[in-house]
Amino acid sequence: MADNYSFEYFTVQFPANHQYVAHVEINRPERLNAFIEVMWENMAQIFNKLSSDPRVRAIVLSGAGERAFTTGLDVKAASEGLLSSDTKTDPARKAVDLRRHITAFQDCVTAVERCEKPVIVALHGFSLGLGIDLSTATDVRLCARDTRFGVKEVDIGLAADVGTLSRLPKVVGNYGWVKEVALTAREFGAEEALRVGFVNAVYDNREATIAAAFKLASLMASKSPVAVQGTKEILNFSRDHSVQDGLRYTSVWNSAALQTQDVSAALLSGLQKRTPTFEKL
Amino acid sequence: MADNYSFEYFTVQFPANHQYVAHVEINRPERLNAFIEVMWENMAQIFNKLSSDPRVRAIVLSGAGERAFTTGLDVKAASEGLLSSDTKTDPARKAVDLRRHITAFQDCVTAVERCEKPVIVALHGFSLGLGIDLSTATDVRLCARDTRFGVKEVDIGLAADVGTLSRLPKVVGNYGWVKEVALTAREFGAEEALRVGFVNAVYDNREATIAAAFKLASLMASKSPVAVQGTKEILNFSRDHSVQDGLRYTSVWNSAALQTQDVSAALLSGLQKRTPTFEKL
Amino acid sequence: MADNYSFEYFTVQFPANHQYVAHVEINRPERLNAFIEVMWENMAQIFNKLSSDPRVRAIVLSGAGERAFTTGLDVKAASEGLLSSDTKTDPARKAVDLRRHITAFQDCVTAVERCEKPVIVALHGFSLGLGIDLSTATDVRLCARDTRFGVKEVDIGLAADVGTLSRLPKVVGNYGWVKEVALTAREFGAEEALRVGFVNAVYDNREATIAAAFKLASLMASKSPVAVQGTKEILNFSRDHSVQDGLRYTSVWNSAALQTQDVSAALLSGLQKRTPTFEKL
Amino acid sequence: MADNYSFEYFTVQFPANHQYVAHVEINRPERLNAFIEVMWENMAQIFNKLSSDPRVRAIVLSGAGERAFTTGLDVKAASEGLLSSDTKTDPARKAVDLRRHITAFQDCVTAVERCEKPVIVALHGFSLGLGIDLSTATDVRLCARDTRFGVKEVDIGLAADVGTLSRLPKVVGNYGWVKEVALTAREFGAEEALRVGFVNAVYDNREATIAAAFKLASLMASKSPVAVQGTKEILNFSRDHSVQDGLRYTSVWNSAALQTQDVSAALLSGLQKRTPTFEKL
Amino acid sequence: MADNYSFEYFTVQFPANHQYVAHVEINRPERLNAFIEVMWENMAQIFNKLSSDPRVRAIVLSGAGERAFTTGLDVKAASEGLLSSDTKTDPARKAVDLRRHITAFQDCVTAVERCEKPVIVALHGFSLGLGIDLSTATDVRLCARDTRFGVKEVDIGLAADVGTLSRLPKVVGNYGWVKEVALTAREFGAEEALRVGFVNAVYDNREATIAAAFKLASLMASKSPVAVQGTKEILNFSRDHSVQDGLRYTSVWNSAALQTQDVSAALLSGLQKRTPTFEKL
Amino acid sequence: MADNYSFEYFTVQFPANHQYVAHVEINRPERLNAFIEVMWENMAQIFNKLSSDPRVRAIVLSGAGERAFTTGLDVKAASEGLLSSDTKTDPARKAVDLRRHITAFQDCVTAVERCEKPVIVALHGFSLGLGIDLSTATDVRLCARDTRFGVKEVDIGLAADVGTLSRLPKVVGNYGWVKEVALTAREFGAEEALRVGFVNAVYDNREATIAAAFKLASLMASKSPVAVQGTKEILNFSRDHSVQDGLRYTSVWNSAALQTQDVSAALLSGLQKRTPTFEKL
Repeated sequence: MADNYSFEYFTVQFPANHQYVAHVEINRPERLNAFIEVMWENMAQIFNKLSSDPRVRAIVLSGAGERAFTTGLDVKAASEGLLSSDTKTDPARKAVDLRRHITAFQDCVTAVERCEKPVIVALHGFSLGLGIDLSTATDVRLCARDTRFGVKEVDIGLAADVGTLSRLPKVVGNYGWVKEVALTAREFGAEEALRVGFVNAVYDNREATIAAAFKLASLMASKSPVAVQGTKEILNFSRDHSVQDGLRYTSVWNSAALQTQDVSAALLSGLQKRTPTFEKL
Repeated sequence: MADNYSFEYFTVQFPANHQYVAHVEINRPERLNAFIEVMWENMAQIFNKLSSDPRVRAIVLSGAGERAFTTGLDVKAASEGLLSSDTKTDPARKAVDLRRHITAFQDCVTAVERCEKPVIVALHGFSLGLGIDLSTATDVRLCARDTRFGVKEVDIGLAADVGTLSRLPKVVGNYGWVKEVALTAREFGAEEALRVGFVNAVYDNREATIAAAFKLASLMASKSPVAVQGTKEILNFSRDHSVQDGLRYTSVWNSAALQTQDVSAALLSGLQKRTPTFEKL
Repeated sequence: MADNYSFEYFTVQFPANHQYVAHVEINRPERLNAFIEVMWENMAQIFNKLSSDPRVRAIVLSGAGERAFTTGLDVKAASEGLLSSDTKTDPARKAVDLRRHITAFQDCVTAVERCEKPVIVALHGFSLGLGIDLSTATDVRLCARDTRFGVKEVDIGLAADVGTLSRLPKVVGNYGWVKEVALTAREFGAEEALRVGFVNAVYDNREATIAAAFKLASLMASKSPVAVQGTKEILNFSRDHSVQDGLRYTSVWNSAALQTQDVSAALLSGLQKRTPTFEKL
Repeated sequence: MADNYSFEYFTVQFPANHQYVAHVEINRPERLNAFIEVMWENMAQIFNKLSSDPRVRAIVLSGAGERAFTTGLDVKAASEGLLSSDTKTDPARKAVDLRRHITAFQDCVTAVERCEKPVIVALHGFSLGLGIDLSTATDVRLCARDTRFGVKEVDIGLAADVGTLSRLPKVVGNYGWVKEVALTAREFGAEEALRVGFVNAVYDNREATIAAAFKLASLMASKSPVAVQGTKEILNFSRDHSVQDGLRYTSVWNSAALQTQDVSAALLSGLQKRTPTFEKL
Repeated sequence: MADNYSFEYFTVQFPANHQYVAHVEINRPERLNAFIEVMWENMAQIFNKLSSDPRVRAIVLSGAGERAFTTGLDVKAASEGLLSSDTKTDPARKAVDLRRHITAFQDCVTAVERCEKPVIVALHGFSLGLGIDLSTATDVRLCARDTRFGVKEVDIGLAADVGTLSRLPKVVGNYGWVKEVALTAREFGAEEALRVGFVNAVYDNREATIAAAFKLASLMASKSPVAVQGTKEILNFSRDHSVQDGLRYTSVWNSAALQTQDVSAALLSGLQKRTPTFEKL
Repeated sequence: MADNYSFEYFTVQFPANHQYVAHVEINRPERLNAFIEVMWENMAQIFNKLSSDPRVRAIVLSGAGERAFTTGLDVKAASEGLLSSDTKTDPARKAVDLRRHITAFQDCVTAVERCEKPVIVALHGFSLGLGIDLSTATDVRLCARDTRFGVKEVDIGLAADVGTLSRLPKVVGNYGWVKEVALTAREFGAEEALRVGFVNAVYDNREATIAAAFKLASLMASKSPVAVQGTKEILNFSRDHSVQDGLRYTSVWNSAALQTQDVSAALLSGLQKRTPTFEKL
């Protein structure tokens, strides 16, 4: 089955020692994991597949190579691509092409957020531009001490448009700081990321970060998948709606979810001090 | 009048030395203040009453006994109740029962948020599950150093459904942390709660926390009730709406509220360096 | 051209050593920069003008005099004004006057938020009431160590109504803290403001704060104005909308903005290690 | 059990020849069914009860007596009540009382909309003021040829505040007509109501209207209650949300509802050309 | 005072025989009332002024000359203006200019909607393009039999951008028809406009239409201005919000408005069968 | 190129005599065009492709065979599919499968709405269930005199869940009628559909309806595609947002679109009384 997850620039693994946890790794280290178009399309396919893969209950996302999670969009490839090949001269028609392109790109990043299983990202080294867009679409961000973050888009003359500007202010409760890093493109490090709440914890290096991500993912994967996936969905819904709408959605969601056998399985295991097992989902 | 506030599992008091402050205490310490159905119904009645009781301008909520604010829903009672007694076999019909039940439960917690007077919760010991739901519906959270917090619902196979998942992300500006504690059910302590902004301050023990809550409540109760209650209402409205909608609502609200005699009373007292008194509301 | 920006209670300057940066200073130091009606009208005019002034790419806002950024509304003048002069006795008709007045006032503060260029406020000394409303409408807040902040409105019998209650909870991700300072009117200092994320940084004194604000503004002004202004607009839009709506708005916005020559100018400068210049906007 | 539904000013019946249909009649004909405070409280109790009463799958609402469905609020009683008894002089405090009162009143009308079963109103004679508020909270409006409608509130110096102004523009797709009748208080008849879509059909007289309402209610009551109640809920949710939110809510709702045995019961009955029976809900 | 309302292309009158009614007429008949830039700026000034002018309680809007209400934007003047004079070549910078221009234009049309008094438009002859934008911002539309309507913008290569596409679907409850006329630019006449609910009534000619508009305006102007203006505001708020939000806004609005003396004035006049008079607003 | 559009159950054609118009026909007439799963997946592919196909500026959708546009979901195939094959017994896990399935189905229907080109549906014969869902996702509905419409889902024990309940109330401005037909599943004919605004026009038979659809599509296709596609997008955005949000989105959209050469092409052609040609989009 593993070959279903074969992609040139991504490795997807199901480590035996981490039951129900998938590991997705961006794998273009020679280019510091910079993204070319096929990569974000692949990424969407991977997360769409994992979303309904019953073997998976939590996901770790990381970048291959010691130097970077990702430096973001491969600007060189991008500038040779879309814009240069476009021979249109009518600005309105160019705008249509650009909008379709941006929307397609956004949808790929949103696939990470829409994935029904929790996604924990392990960041290290350069984590710039698209690296921020991507990580704001995950559920939990962990990072290595050497991570260099940056919302770099204004440095190349554009406003970030695949997620950072929409999600970052809802991820980090310090709007002045968001404005500062987005309007100046200045880089920031792991400690600052921890202080403002962008990452949950900082580890010594890439390996330790990935190990911590697996530990956290395994913990989530050991719980009822009905409970965990419902919790992710309701939290994401609530972020974008009023409290009253959030409560209403929750009550409808749980009207089915509470009928699960996981509740009695969990309660019984609790009483018997043993680890519950839950039917696949 | 006090007997209007007589409930088996709650004590409601109006301490003489804290003018305009009511004290609501969950009072089932032998069960660590775990909630059974009658309790959340009572709680709603209490806060609905306090909401329009002119003797009250601020409220302190705490839990009786040294060991727990509350351990949350009384799971044992719950499992003997609704689910077991329900003989329906059609999942759609069970869903209707569950949804009505969740909605009724949510409404009881929302009664705390809808209460027109500020509510300060003094947390200590176990403050789990429903304890989090409840405290996110209050205005200010204070806690004792020994407090053990936890969004425990996934540990019993369900997504929290009476408020935590809708309110916690709007109370704490660290979405990754919210995801982590909600998806893992791991407990956290007072210092972590302070660091992420879940509580405003930490005190040595239960008594000191309640004392601090009273001090804060008394300070709020000493201000114009027109001003304080308007401030709470507008803040809650704004949380769920755009800035532009918030401003529009504010202008309409204050078009009546600014006609209060409290403004001149407050200004005059300020000039005369004396404590203003405000007509009951 | 400078005379277009002549106002009795504001100075507007374009410092030669800070290209593309405008400096707006509240200039009524003898009254601790307290606002009278003409001042907020002037303020709106200034920011509306700066919004489309091609010489300007970032703005520093500060208060003249050592003692205060502003103590807020000039209560004395206000109480001699609107309310006292109003001879209407019908509360509904008074309400209409008050609502129109509040709305007009709100619109002036909103002019700061709507200004298309980033605004960095340098706070010092007393920064009370309207000082908070105003600074929540800017993009980044810096302050001097001596700053005394306070949402003081409840102390004069009213709920803040020109922006604080709508914007502060979206600026600071600690809702309990917002409730506490707004419901008690207690003052807080620079360190607390930093800790909760209300300000981005604290400096030794007024001068150092203004200098830091200029440095930050200059940095923003050195970037592509298409990128910077788009970033501000999209961040503000996203604050008030769902992630999905934010992404959709972004794709439409960038369908025009990405056609800018600034992208190639920025990329080329990057390759050539020189500072890019961008056409005026 | 009928006595559970005993109220002085309402009759609630369960006609034997209309299985699963309840009949609620406003019963104060000597006062043209004008509402006094106890009546709207009773009405809320009735509809809250019917909402979860398994004997009921559809409801007919009508008014007793030949002359009026209702002439609306009993102005005389109202003016002797709240306003006159209120000895408060502070306009802000009066505003609090009024707001609580309006909200309580609105909640009673909203109880009709929130009732999980479809409500068909049979209108006749005077159907003014509150009669419009009430009928916009029902699902289908039928009327007799003699019905006199009117949004009469501006004629007594106030804007309608218990539902008409919020619901009427969403019930009738002719906004100019809504503005006209609400801003002038002019009455309109059955034919005009039919033409603009306010009523679904017009009948010769009160009896024929009620008979038609029963026929329609019986038809709805003969369908799967899971399907009918889900349809009402989703339609009401969708009215207040975007299409995308409506679809999302629908998918969650039906994830439980589609598990009903009613689907196979309905399909089988269809094949066998017989009337299906559905388990109580 | 009349000279305050002096504008080259508009006449504003206060007919003696229509108390409290203002008459605004577009007055460039030699150009079929086509709009040049100064005209929409003037229009905004006029409606902003009328909004708080206590002499005015309702407004009639019409077009001078027999041939047209307005043929819309003066395309010739427009094409000689903004676009041709703009020497910018960067599409992103052009986009900024265009967006500012559109927004300014939209705000002028929105001034008609924001005007606190009801606006009745009397349409005749050519009522194209901007004529539709404008009339959807009014409260009631009446027209002469000869009126030629058309959402003509696609015929000149653009999507209507000053209001029609946002307001028309909320004015007319036939979305397919809106799509058809907006996507084809086909003209339609008075009868079709009446049938789909775009206009409230059709009259024989321009004079009869204006007379009917005055009659309707006078009727609205004879009612309590507190009630009428509140009704307009709440209807417009409700159009853009959920029913629940509409009800909440209404309760706050009326908490001040119900304190008006107009209620007792209206009730008393009703009992005494005489015409009430209301204090100016 | 036509083979790109080869599907077993759909024919897609580009009639030579209707420049820029595509014709999509549901082609399973032996089963009355009832939908099986592969069909709605194909439909999404077709409309996604047409959305960016520069040869296409408007689309006609119809059903093959004389008897039906479509009778909706192929209930027989559906009942043999998903539900029967699902061996899961846990209601919560079944709910997950059902939700994923409904969402995938909804997305296919939404592809019709998202298609950037206008879609005109020509309805005839049986147009039930999914036929209503589908047609509410198009822009304009035309029908033959013999069309039998019906929101039939309650008759098979379920609430319609692929669009009708979310879109129909926004397509037809008669909410009571929507409630009636959705809660009773009663069929209705062409005249009723016309009267309530569900269809724009009625024609003698299938052929005449399709001919009329082509005529309308050709008219739309003859206009500037920048203008037409912008108009569709803005109308759909506005349906789901407040007027203020609609205007803001419009101004950003047109900031790029107004830079099109189509405006001058259209204006010039107008002056020269000839048919404009527009660059492909």
